[in-house]
Amino acid sequence: MKKTPRSTVKRAPKRGLYDAPSIYEILDRNHICHVGILHEGAPLVIPTLYGRKGNTLYIHGASVSRLITRLEEAIPLSLSVAKTTGLVLARSAFHHSLNYESVVLFGAGRLVPEADKMEALKAVSDHLIPGRWEEVRKPNTKELKATKVIAIPLEEVTAKVRSGGPKDDPADDELALWAGVVPIKEIYEAPIADSTLNKNMELPKSVTNLYNLKS
Amino acid sequence: MKKTPRSTVKRAPKRGLYDAPSIYEILDRNHICHVGILHEGAPLVIPTLYGRKGNTLYIHGASVSRLITRLEEAIPLSLSVAKTTGLVLARSAFHHSLNYESVVLFGAGRLVPEADKMEALKAVSDHLIPGRWEEVRKPNTKELKATKVIAIPLEEVTAKVRSGGPKDDPADDELALWAGVVPIKEIYEAPIADSTLNKNMELPKSVTNLYNLKS
Repeated sequence: MKKTPRSTVKRAPKRGLYDAPSIYEILDRNHICHVGILHEGAPLVIPTLYGRKGNTLYIHGASVSRLITRLEEAIPLSLSVAKTTGLVLARSAFHHSLNYESVVLFGAGRLVPEADKMEALKAVSDHLIPGRWEEVRKPNTKELKATKVIAIPLEEVTAKVRSGGPKDDPADDELALWAGVVPIKEIYEAPIADSTLNKNMELPKSVTNLYNLKS
Repeated sequence: MKKTPRSTVKRAPKRGLYDAPSIYEILDRNHICHVGILHEGAPLVIPTLYGRKGNTLYIHGASVSRLITRLEEAIPLSLSVAKTTGLVLARSAFHHSLNYESVVLFGAGRLVPEADKMEALKAVSDHLIPGRWEEVRKPNTKELKATKVIAIPLEEVTAKVRSGGPKDDPADDELALWAGVVPIKEIYEAPIADSTLNKNMELPKSVTNLYNLKS
Protein backbone atom coordinates (compact mmCIF):
# COMPACT_ATOMS: atom_id res chain seq x y z
CA MET A 1 0.00 0.00 0.00
CA LYS A 2 1.00 3.60 -0.56
CA LYS A 3 2.59 4.85 2.69
CA THR A 4 2.06 8.58 3.04
CA PRO A 5 2.71 10.90 5.99
CA ARG A 6 -0.97 10.86 6.97
CA SER A 7 -1.34 7.08 6.59
CA THR A 8 1.76 6.33 8.68
CA VAL A 9 1.09 5.18 12.24
CA LYS A 10 2.61 7.68 14.67
CA ARG A 11 1.58 6.34 18.09
CA ALA A 12 3.09 2.88 18.71
CA PRO A 13 4.53 2.69 15.15
CA LYS A 14 5.41 -1.01 15.56
CA ARG A 15 1.69 -1.77 15.48
CA GLY A 16 1.32 -0.38 11.95
CA LEU A 17 0.91 -2.79 9.03
CA TYR A 18 1.07 -1.66 5.41
CA ASP A 19 0.94 -4.94 3.46
CA ALA A 20 -2.19 -5.83 1.50
CA PRO A 21 -2.71 -9.34 2.99
CA SER A 22 -2.81 -8.02 6.58
CA ILE A 23 -5.19 -5.24 5.60
CA TYR A 24 -7.46 -7.54 3.56
CA GLU A 25 -7.65 -10.05 6.43
CA ILE A 26 -8.92 -7.42 8.86
CA LEU A 27 -11.37 -6.00 6.33
CA ASP A 28 -12.69 -9.50 5.58
CA ARG A 29 -13.36 -10.25 9.26
CA ASN A 30 -15.45 -7.11 9.75
CA HIS A 31 -18.69 -5.71 8.35
CA ILE A 32 -19.07 -2.06 9.21
CA CYS A 33 -16.86 0.86 8.20
CA HIS A 34 -17.19 4.44 9.42
CA VAL A 35 -17.03 6.84 6.51
CA GLY A 36 -16.02 10.44 7.16
CA ILE A 37 -16.62 13.27 4.71
CA LEU A 38 -16.97 17.01 4.86
CA HIS A 39 -20.69 17.79 4.50
CA GLU A 40 -22.12 21.30 4.58
CA GLY A 41 -18.90 22.59 6.07
CA ALA A 42 -18.55 20.11 8.92
CA PRO A 43 -17.31 16.55 9.37
CA LEU A 44 -19.91 13.79 9.06
CA VAL A 45 -19.12 10.20 10.08
CA ILE A 46 -21.62 7.50 9.10
CA PRO A 47 -21.34 3.78 9.86
CA THR A 48 -22.20 1.59 6.91
CA LEU A 49 -21.85 -1.97 5.63
CA TYR A 50 -19.07 -2.68 3.15
CA GLY A 51 -17.69 -5.47 1.01
CA ARG A 52 -14.22 -6.05 -0.38
CA LYS A 53 -13.19 -7.65 -3.65
CA GLY A 54 -9.56 -7.50 -4.71
CA ASN A 55 -8.21 -4.05 -4.18
CA THR A 56 -11.61 -2.36 -3.99
CA LEU A 57 -13.97 -1.63 -1.14
CA TYR A 58 -17.67 -1.37 -2.02
CA ILE A 59 -20.35 0.57 -0.18
CA HIS A 60 -23.95 0.44 -1.29
CA GLY A 61 -27.03 2.33 -0.33
CA ALA A 62 -30.28 3.88 -1.42
CA SER A 63 -29.74 5.96 -4.54
CA VAL A 64 -31.02 9.04 -2.72
CA SER A 65 -29.03 8.63 0.51
CA ARG A 66 -27.01 11.58 1.79
CA LEU A 67 -23.77 9.63 2.08
CA ILE A 68 -24.01 7.91 -1.31
CA THR A 69 -24.96 11.03 -3.27
CA ARG A 70 -21.98 12.86 -1.75
CA LEU A 71 -19.55 9.99 -2.35
CA GLU A 72 -20.46 9.70 -6.02
CA GLU A 73 -19.07 13.23 -6.43
CA ALA A 74 -15.65 11.71 -5.63
CA ILE A 75 -15.09 14.04 -2.67
CA PRO A 76 -12.18 13.23 -0.31
CA LEU A 77 -13.06 10.69 2.34
CA SER A 78 -11.49 8.79 5.17
CA LEU A 79 -12.88 5.64 6.68
CA SER A 80 -12.04 3.31 9.51
CA VAL A 81 -12.88 -0.22 10.60
CA ALA A 82 -12.11 -1.50 14.08
CA LYS A 83 -12.82 -4.41 16.37
CA THR A 84 -11.96 -4.84 20.05
CA THR A 85 -10.32 -8.22 20.53
CA GLY A 86 -9.48 -8.00 24.21
CA LEU A 87 -9.31 -5.97 27.40
CA VAL A 88 -5.73 -5.59 28.62
CA LEU A 89 -5.48 -5.28 32.40
CA ALA A 90 -2.25 -3.96 33.86
CA ARG A 91 -1.20 -3.31 37.45
CA SER A 92 -1.38 0.44 36.87
CA ALA A 93 -4.34 2.35 35.48
CA PHE A 94 -1.98 3.98 32.96
CA HIS A 95 -0.93 0.75 31.26
CA HIS A 96 -4.45 -0.58 30.76
CA SER A 97 -5.17 -0.99 27.08
CA LEU A 98 -7.33 -2.63 24.45
CA ASN A 99 -6.35 -5.33 22.03
CA TYR A 100 -7.82 -4.42 18.67
CA GLU A 101 -7.53 -4.66 14.92
CA SER A 102 -8.19 -1.60 12.82
CA VAL A 103 -7.89 -0.19 9.32
CA VAL A 104 -7.80 3.46 8.31
CA LEU A 105 -8.18 4.54 4.68
CA PHE A 106 -7.85 7.82 2.79
CA GLY A 107 -9.12 8.33 -0.73
CA ALA A 108 -12.23 8.99 -2.74
CA GLY A 109 -15.07 6.92 -4.13
CA ARG A 110 -16.50 6.61 -7.60
CA LEU A 111 -19.96 5.55 -8.68
CA VAL A 112 -20.02 1.99 -10.02
CA PRO A 113 -21.52 2.14 -13.55
CA GLU A 114 -24.77 0.31 -14.31
CA ALA A 115 -22.95 -2.43 -16.25
CA ASP A 116 -20.85 -3.37 -13.19
CA LYS A 117 -23.45 -2.83 -10.49
CA MET A 118 -24.63 -6.44 -10.24
CA GLU A 119 -21.07 -7.71 -9.77
CA ALA A 120 -20.37 -5.05 -7.13
CA LEU A 121 -23.54 -5.96 -5.21
CA LYS A 122 -22.47 -9.60 -5.35
CA ALA A 123 -19.12 -8.56 -3.85
CA VAL A 124 -20.90 -6.95 -0.89
CA SER A 125 -23.10 -10.03 -0.47
CA ASP A 126 -20.12 -12.42 -0.72
CA HIS A 127 -18.26 -10.37 1.88
CA LEU A 128 -21.11 -10.66 4.37
CA ILE A 129 -22.37 -14.19 3.71
CA PRO A 130 -20.22 -16.17 1.24
CA GLY A 131 -22.38 -18.25 -1.12
CA ARG A 132 -25.67 -16.54 -0.27
CA TRP A 133 -25.87 -14.71 -3.60
CA GLU A 134 -26.21 -18.00 -5.50
CA GLU A 135 -29.11 -19.11 -3.28
CA VAL A 136 -31.46 -16.13 -3.53
CA ARG A 137 -33.52 -14.10 -5.97
CA LYS A 138 -31.24 -11.58 -7.71
CA PRO A 139 -32.05 -7.85 -7.85
CA ASN A 140 -34.61 -6.86 -10.50
CA THR A 141 -34.56 -3.67 -12.57
CA LYS A 142 -36.53 -1.66 -10.02
CA GLU A 143 -34.29 -2.77 -7.13
CA LEU A 144 -31.13 -2.03 -9.10
CA LYS A 145 -32.41 1.44 -9.86
CA ALA A 146 -33.08 2.09 -6.17
CA THR A 147 -29.50 1.18 -5.25
CA LYS A 148 -26.16 2.80 -5.94
CA VAL A 149 -22.75 1.32 -5.28
CA ILE A 150 -19.60 3.30 -4.56
CA ALA A 151 -16.19 1.78 -5.27
CA ILE A 152 -13.24 2.95 -3.13
CA PRO A 153 -9.72 1.88 -4.14
CA LEU A 154 -7.59 0.38 -1.37
CA GLU A 155 -4.46 2.45 -1.95
CA GLU A 156 -3.67 4.76 0.95
CA VAL A 157 -4.56 2.33 3.73
CA THR A 158 -3.04 1.35 7.06
CA ALA A 159 -3.81 -1.39 9.53
CA LYS A 160 -3.01 -1.18 13.22
CA VAL A 161 -3.14 -4.16 15.54
CA ARG A 162 -2.49 -4.61 19.23
CA SER A 163 -2.34 -8.09 20.70
CA GLY A 164 -0.81 -9.77 23.73
CA GLY A 165 -0.61 -8.92 27.39
CA PRO A 166 -0.02 -5.79 29.45
CA LYS A 167 3.31 -3.95 29.48
CA ASP A 168 3.65 -3.00 33.09
CA ASP A 169 6.32 -0.81 34.60
CA PRO A 170 8.85 -3.24 36.14
CA ALA A 171 8.45 -1.44 39.48
CA ASP A 172 4.76 -2.41 39.49
CA ASP A 173 5.40 -6.14 39.08
CA GLU A 174 5.74 -6.57 42.83
CA LEU A 175 2.23 -5.24 43.48
CA ALA A 176 -0.11 -8.09 44.40
CA LEU A 177 -2.49 -7.26 41.56
CA TRP A 178 -3.95 -9.47 38.87
CA ALA A 179 -2.86 -8.56 35.36
CA GLY A 180 -3.68 -10.21 32.05
CA VAL A 181 -6.05 -10.22 29.13
CA VAL A 182 -9.80 -10.78 28.81
CA PRO A 183 -10.19 -11.88 25.17
CA ILE A 184 -13.27 -10.66 23.32
CA LYS A 185 -14.76 -12.74 20.53
CA GLU A 186 -17.64 -12.29 18.15
CA ILE A 187 -19.78 -15.39 17.71
CA TYR A 188 -22.79 -16.36 15.63
CA GLU A 189 -25.64 -17.63 17.78
CA ALA A 190 -28.24 -20.20 16.65
CA PRO A 191 -30.13 -18.98 13.57
CA ILE A 192 -33.72 -17.81 14.01
CA ALA A 193 -35.97 -18.85 11.12
CA ASP A 194 -38.47 -16.30 9.81
CA SER A 195 -41.93 -16.92 11.29
CA THR A 196 -43.44 -17.41 7.82
CA LEU A 197 -41.02 -20.22 6.99
CA ASN A 198 -42.01 -23.83 6.47
CA LYS A 199 -40.90 -25.54 9.70
CA ASN A 200 -39.14 -28.38 7.89
CA MET A 201 -36.92 -26.20 5.76
CA GLU A 202 -33.25 -27.02 6.20
CA LEU A 203 -30.63 -24.34 6.77
CA PRO A 204 -28.94 -23.30 3.53
CA LYS A 205 -25.27 -24.07 2.97
CA SER A 206 -24.32 -20.39 3.21
CA VAL A 207 -25.60 -20.30 6.79
CA THR A 208 -24.10 -23.59 8.01
CA ASN A 209 -20.76 -22.50 6.50
CA LEU A 210 -20.83 -19.33 8.61
CA TYR A 211 -20.72 -21.38 11.81
CA ASN A 212 -17.72 -23.37 10.60
CA LEU A 213 -15.98 -20.10 9.80
CA LYS A 214 -16.49 -18.68 13.26
CA SER A 215 -15.72 -21.72 15.39
CA MET B 1 -31.13 15.32 22.61
CA LYS B 2 -31.07 18.27 20.24
CA LYS B 3 -32.63 17.09 16.96
CA THR B 4 -31.16 19.05 14.05
CA PRO B 5 -31.49 18.49 10.30
CA ARG B 6 -28.12 16.76 10.11
CA SER B 7 -28.75 14.59 13.17
CA THR B 8 -32.16 13.42 11.95
CA VAL B 9 -32.25 9.91 10.49
CA LYS B 10 -33.32 10.09 6.85
CA ARG B 11 -33.09 6.48 5.65
CA ALA B 12 -35.53 4.27 7.58
CA PRO B 13 -36.52 7.14 9.93
CA LYS B 14 -38.43 4.76 12.25
CA ARG B 15 -35.08 3.34 13.34
CA GLY B 16 -33.93 6.69 14.73
CA LEU B 17 -33.82 7.22 18.50
CA TYR B 18 -33.24 10.60 20.09
CA ASP B 19 -33.76 9.95 23.80
CA ALA B 20 -30.78 9.99 26.15
CA PRO B 21 -31.40 6.55 27.78
CA SER B 22 -31.39 4.73 24.41
CA ILE B 23 -28.24 6.55 23.33
CA TYR B 24 -26.45 6.00 26.65
CA GLU B 25 -27.28 2.27 26.59
CA ILE B 26 -25.66 1.80 23.20
CA LEU B 27 -22.62 3.88 24.15
CA ASP B 28 -22.22 1.89 27.37
CA ARG B 29 -22.23 -1.45 25.53
CA ASN B 30 -19.44 -0.42 23.16
CA HIS B 31 -15.78 0.62 23.48
CA ILE B 32 -14.55 2.18 20.27
CA CYS B 33 -15.76 5.33 18.55
CA HIS B 34 -14.65 6.58 15.15
CA VAL B 35 -13.79 10.27 15.32
CA GLY B 36 -13.87 12.32 12.13
CA ILE B 37 -12.25 15.72 11.77
CA LEU B 38 -10.93 17.87 8.97
CA HIS B 39 -7.12 17.62 9.09
CA GLU B 40 -4.82 19.38 6.64
CA GLY B 41 -7.75 19.98 4.33
CA ALA B 42 -9.08 16.42 4.17
CA PRO B 43 -11.27 14.18 6.33
CA LEU B 44 -9.49 11.99 8.87
CA VAL B 45 -11.33 9.20 10.71
CA ILE B 46 -9.54 7.55 13.64
CA PRO B 47 -10.91 4.75 15.84
CA THR B 48 -10.30 5.30 19.52
CA LEU B 49 -11.43 4.10 22.93
CA TYR B 50 -13.99 6.22 24.78
CA GLY B 51 -15.80 6.40 28.08
CA ARG B 52 -19.11 7.98 29.03
CA LYS B 53 -20.12 9.67 32.26
CA GLY B 54 -23.42 11.49 32.44
CA ASN B 55 -23.86 13.63 29.39
CA THR B 56 -20.17 13.64 28.44
CA LEU B 57 -18.06 11.38 26.28
CA TYR B 58 -14.36 11.20 27.12
CA ILE B 59 -11.50 10.34 24.79
CA HIS B 60 -7.95 10.10 26.07
CA GLY B 61 -4.62 9.74 24.41
CA ALA B 62 -0.97 10.65 24.39
CA SER B 63 -0.56 14.38 24.90
CA VAL B 64 1.28 14.64 21.57
CA SER B 65 -1.14 12.54 19.48
CA ARG B 66 -2.42 14.01 16.21
CA LEU B 67 -6.07 13.45 17.06
CA ILE B 68 -5.89 14.77 20.63
CA THR B 69 -3.91 17.91 19.76
CA ARG B 70 -6.45 18.74 17.06
CA LEU B 71 -9.47 18.04 19.26
CA GLU B 72 -8.23 20.29 22.04
CA GLU B 73 -8.56 23.19 19.57
CA ALA B 74 -12.34 22.57 19.74
CA ILE B 75 -12.60 22.01 15.97
CA PRO B 76 -15.89 20.57 14.64
CA LEU B 77 -16.05 16.80 14.83
CA SER B 78 -18.41 13.96 14.13
CA LEU B 79 -18.11 10.51 15.58
CA SER B 80 -19.87 7.20 15.28
CA VAL B 81 -20.15 3.98 17.24
CA ALA B 82 -21.65 0.83 15.74
CA LYS B 83 -22.03 -2.86 16.42
CA THR B 84 -23.41 -5.58 14.16
CA THR B 85 -25.95 -7.61 16.12
CA GLY B 86 -27.15 -9.95 13.39
CA LEU B 87 -27.14 -10.96 9.74
CA VAL B 88 -30.60 -10.65 8.21
CA LEU B 89 -31.22 -13.15 5.42
CA ALA B 90 -34.13 -12.53 3.09
CA ARG B 91 -35.39 -14.47 0.06
CA SER B 92 -34.15 -11.75 -2.27
CA ALA B 93 -30.63 -10.32 -2.38
CA PHE B 94 -32.14 -6.84 -2.17
CA HIS B 95 -33.81 -7.32 1.22
CA HIS B 96 -30.75 -8.73 2.97
CA SER B 97 -29.72 -6.51 5.83
CA LEU B 98 -27.78 -6.19 9.04
CA ASN B 99 -29.14 -5.84 12.52
CA TYR B 100 -27.09 -3.20 14.28
CA GLU B 101 -26.99 -0.52 16.94
CA SER B 102 -25.26 2.75 16.19
CA VAL B 103 -24.75 6.26 17.47
CA VAL B 104 -23.74 9.32 15.46
CA LEU B 105 -22.65 12.55 17.16
CA PHE B 106 -21.85 16.08 15.99
CA GLY B 107 -20.08 18.62 18.12
CA ALA B 108 -16.68 19.68 19.36
CA GLY B 109 -14.36 18.62 22.15
CA ARG B 110 -12.64 20.60 24.88
CA LEU B 111 -9.50 19.78 26.79
CA VAL B 112 -10.24 18.53 30.31
CA PRO B 113 -8.35 20.80 32.75
CA GLU B 114 -5.64 19.31 34.98
CA ALA B 115 -7.87 19.52 38.05
CA ASP B 116 -10.50 17.26 36.45
CA LYS B 117 -8.21 14.92 34.54
CA MET B 118 -8.08 12.17 37.16
CA GLU B 119 -11.89 11.99 37.36
CA ALA B 120 -12.15 11.90 33.55
CA LEU B 121 -9.61 9.07 33.31
CA LYS B 122 -11.58 7.20 35.95
CA ALA B 123 -14.69 7.63 33.79
CA VAL B 124 -12.92 6.00 30.83
CA SER B 125 -11.69 3.18 33.06
CA ASP B 126 -15.14 2.67 34.64
CA HIS B 127 -16.69 2.54 31.17
CA LEU B 128 -14.36 -0.24 30.05
CA ILE B 129 -14.03 -2.29 33.25
CA PRO B 130 -16.29 -1.14 36.08
CA GLY B 131 -14.51 -1.31 39.42
CA ARG B 132 -11.00 -1.75 38.00
CA TRP B 133 -9.93 1.79 38.94
CA GLU B 134 -10.25 1.02 42.64
CA GLU B 135 -8.05 -2.07 42.33
CA VAL B 136 -4.97 -0.66 40.59
CA ARG B 137 -2.16 1.85 41.00
CA LYS B 138 -3.44 5.30 40.04
CA PRO B 139 -1.66 7.55 37.52
CA ASN B 140 1.38 9.41 38.86
CA THR B 141 2.44 12.93 37.91
CA LYS B 142 4.54 11.80 34.95
CA GLU B 143 1.76 9.59 33.56
CA LEU B 144 -0.82 12.35 33.96
CA LYS B 145 1.43 14.73 32.08
CA ALA B 146 1.80 12.26 29.21
CA THR B 147 -1.99 11.98 28.85
CA LYS B 148 -4.65 14.39 27.72
CA VAL B 149 -8.38 13.90 27.95
CA ILE B 150 -10.95 15.46 25.64
CA ALA B 151 -14.54 15.93 26.81
CA ILE B 152 -17.30 15.91 24.17
CA PRO B 153 -20.83 16.91 25.20
CA LEU B 154 -23.61 14.52 24.20
CA GLU B 155 -25.98 17.07 22.69
CA GLU B 156 -26.46 16.62 18.97
CA VAL B 157 -26.59 12.83 18.99
CA THR B 158 -28.70 10.19 17.27
CA ALA B 159 -29.01 6.45 17.73
CA LYS B 160 -30.16 4.10 14.99
CA VAL B 161 -31.11 0.51 15.63
CA ARG B 162 -32.31 -2.30 13.40
CA SER B 163 -33.55 -5.52 14.94
CA GLY B 164 -35.83 -8.38 13.97
CA GLY B 165 -36.25 -10.47 10.85
CA PRO B 166 -36.23 -9.85 7.11
CA LYS B 167 -38.90 -7.81 5.35
CA ASP B 168 -39.42 -9.78 2.17
CA ASP B 169 -41.59 -8.79 -0.76
CA PRO B 170 -44.83 -10.77 -0.32
CA ALA B 171 -44.36 -12.19 -3.81
CA ASP B 172 -41.09 -13.81 -2.67
CA ASP B 173 -42.67 -15.68 0.25
CA GLU B 174 -43.57 -18.60 -1.97
CA LEU B 175 -39.93 -19.17 -2.98
CA ALA B 176 -38.58 -22.26 -1.23
CA LEU B 177 -35.73 -20.30 0.36
CA TRP B 178 -34.60 -20.10 3.97
CA ALA B 179 -34.98 -16.68 5.53
CA GLY B 180 -34.21 -15.50 9.04
CA VAL B 181 -31.60 -14.01 11.30
CA VAL B 182 -28.15 -15.14 12.38
CA PRO B 183 -27.62 -13.27 15.67
CA ILE B 184 -24.11 -11.99 16.39
CA LYS B 185 -22.91 -11.66 19.96
CA GLU B 186 -19.76 -10.40 21.58
CA ILE B 187 -18.50 -12.60 24.41
CA TYR B 188 -15.62 -12.49 26.87
CA GLU B 189 -13.51 -15.63 26.71
CA ALA B 190 -11.58 -17.11 29.66
CA PRO B 191 -9.07 -14.59 31.07
CA ILE B 192 -5.38 -15.15 30.35
CA ALA B 193 -3.16 -14.28 33.31
CA ASP B 194 0.06 -12.40 32.63
CA SER B 195 3.03 -14.81 32.51
CA THR B 196 4.76 -12.99 35.38
CA LEU B 197 1.79 -13.48 37.69
CA ASN B 198 1.83 -15.63 40.81
CA LYS B 199 -0.09 -18.77 39.75
CA ASN B 200 -2.30 -18.76 42.82
CA MET B 201 -3.59 -15.24 42.40
CA GLU B 202 -7.37 -15.07 42.25
CA LEU B 203 -9.24 -13.11 39.60
CA PRO B 204 -10.17 -9.64 40.81
CA LYS B 205 -13.80 -8.70 41.31
CA SER B 206 -13.76 -6.32 38.33
CA VAL B 207 -12.95 -9.24 36.02
CA THR B 208 -15.42 -11.77 37.43
CA ASN B 209 -18.13 -9.09 37.24
CA LEU B 210 -17.45 -8.69 33.51
CA TYR B 211 -18.51 -12.27 32.85
CA ASN B 212 -21.76 -11.82 34.73
CA LEU B 213 -22.43 -8.71 32.67
CA LYS B 214 -21.97 -10.49 29.36
CA SER B 215 -23.77 -13.78 30.07
